[in-house]
Amino acid sequence: MRWIRYETNGHPAYGIVEGDMVTEVRGDPFAGYERTAVRQPMASVKLLTPVEPRTFYCAGLNYAEHVIEAARKRGQEPNLPKAADIGYRANNALIAHGEPIVIPADATERVQYEGELVAVIGSKAKQLSEADALSCVLGWTIGNDMSERTWQANDRTLWRAKNADTFKPMGPWIETDFNLDAAETRVRVNGAEKIRFKTNNMIFGPATFISRMSQYLTLYPGDVVWMGTEGAPENVKHGDTVEIEITGIGTLRNPVVRASR
Amino acid sequence: MRWIRYETNGHPAYGIVEGDMVTEVRGDPFAGYERTAVRQPMASVKLLTPVEPRTFYCAGLNYAEHVIEAARKRGQEPNLPKAADIGYRANNALIAHGEPIVIPADATERVQYEGELVAVIGSKAKQLSEADALSCVLGWTIGNDMSERTWQANDRTLWRAKNADTFKPMGPWIETDFNLDAAETRVRVNGAEKIRFKTNNMIFGPATFISRMSQYLTLYPGDVVWMGTEGAPENVKHGDTVEIEITGIGTLRNPVVRASR
Repeated sequence: MRWIRYETNGHPAYGIVEGDMVTEVRGDPFAGYERTAVRQPMASVKLLTPVEPRTFYCAGLNYAEHVIEAARKRGQEPNLPKAADIGYRANNALIAHGEPIVIPADATERVQYEGELVAVIGSKAKQLSEADALSCVLGWTIGNDMSERTWQANDRTLWRAKNADTFKPMGPWIETDFNLDAAETRVRVNGAEKIRFKTNNMIFGPATFISRMSQYLTLYPGDVVWMGTEGAPENVKHGDTVEIEITGIGTLRNPVVRASR
Repeated sequence: MRWIRYETNGHPAYGIVEGDMVTEVRGDPFAGYERTAVRQPMASVKLLTPVEPRTFYCAGLNYAEHVIEAARKRGQEPNLPKAADIGYRANNALIAHGEPIVIPADATERVQYEGELVAVIGSKAKQLSEADALSCVLGWTIGNDMSERTWQANDRTLWRAKNADTFKPMGPWIETDFNLDAAETRVRVNGAEKIRFKTNNMIFGPATFISRMSQYLTLYPGDVVWMGTEGAPENVKHGDTVEIEITGIGTLRNPVVRASR
């Protein structure tokens, strides 16, 4: 099943996508829903981020090549994570499929995409075993963990390097039927493929992260867990369009502009 | 004016505190409110955290003695922050005044309080000058940034060191009339004072942080900014009670228990 969140009459609503049509529901996929008689073409709706998370989790370094490439650029030895220690991103930075990524006027040219799988939590969960961990996941979406590398290297935290407004595109929808082992992540800039990798080629998979997280914290419906990216991303600039495709989910597409202030 | 958020008939409501009485309002202090005729004694209400933030900001290292003492314990040279780079905490960890701080069963004995001033954002804000920065602040509350120091030193992120469930007591209320320059923070464990410091003795004050943050991100009503702590906190254990008082606001009090799992 494919869930979208969209604006209708100035309010957010959830809908179920079937082919090119959306059926609006009363309620939501977390607390319960029923279908309404309102149907409209997908092309006519304004998409919102599929969810506004209570807590926005992000694995950060979670693919070996990405860790190795990032260390090489800093002239350091790579240091692969030894445990599934989750990190965070900030809600202010979220934007939907189609909305522009706005590079701050004083950012350097080192602004880069990171295509990521996102787990959307569907039910409250604590102390799950690894075998049961995915039982709390409603479905999967796509994230683009946009990053300003100069700030990332120099600021004390990732606040503006990773969490400037618009730096966290997420969407286009939540897909509940997803085969992680079969999935491939493909990143394109202006239509040209930049990288393609097995989505499940993670250092620690979603079940490992969610199980470990849940030993110390409660996961809530609507929380999201971004799973990290692979490889050595390249810079993007004003006028570019970034697409993150994960096969079996869809494609998250956002234009890039630079603020002129 | 003093705002509380509390549970009434199983739902959260905002109320205005006058003396020992609470007047329930329709609406909230952010989007607008009107007083109702419902009044009850403060002693009869179950307090909730004064707000559920959209984004939970935290300054981290922001008092010189705290930075110096922490570095000394690690056997390192102190490295004072050079800019107001904001950090984050997680909503799952928030608890209200009076609720127990639960130390995870496998935590070490190095679990410590950190008494902090908290700015509660009242209105949407972007690109504020330092002179105007506090115009977006509705009021002030108190936070206790509970920390497990062994995990803090060894994990790749602060996820369980700072954000285990119950590690972020916040409250008891939002005080809108507050003189930061006159305020003193006092931390007590089981009634014995552990430290007392000028609340405004920060490396970067709230106006500096909020102005700088707002150059890159949008602040939203209900966001909170925790401002850091002073000194070298001590361990607390099962059976202790921690009080953070900030003069002119009030006292945040929480018992400590250790999970037995």
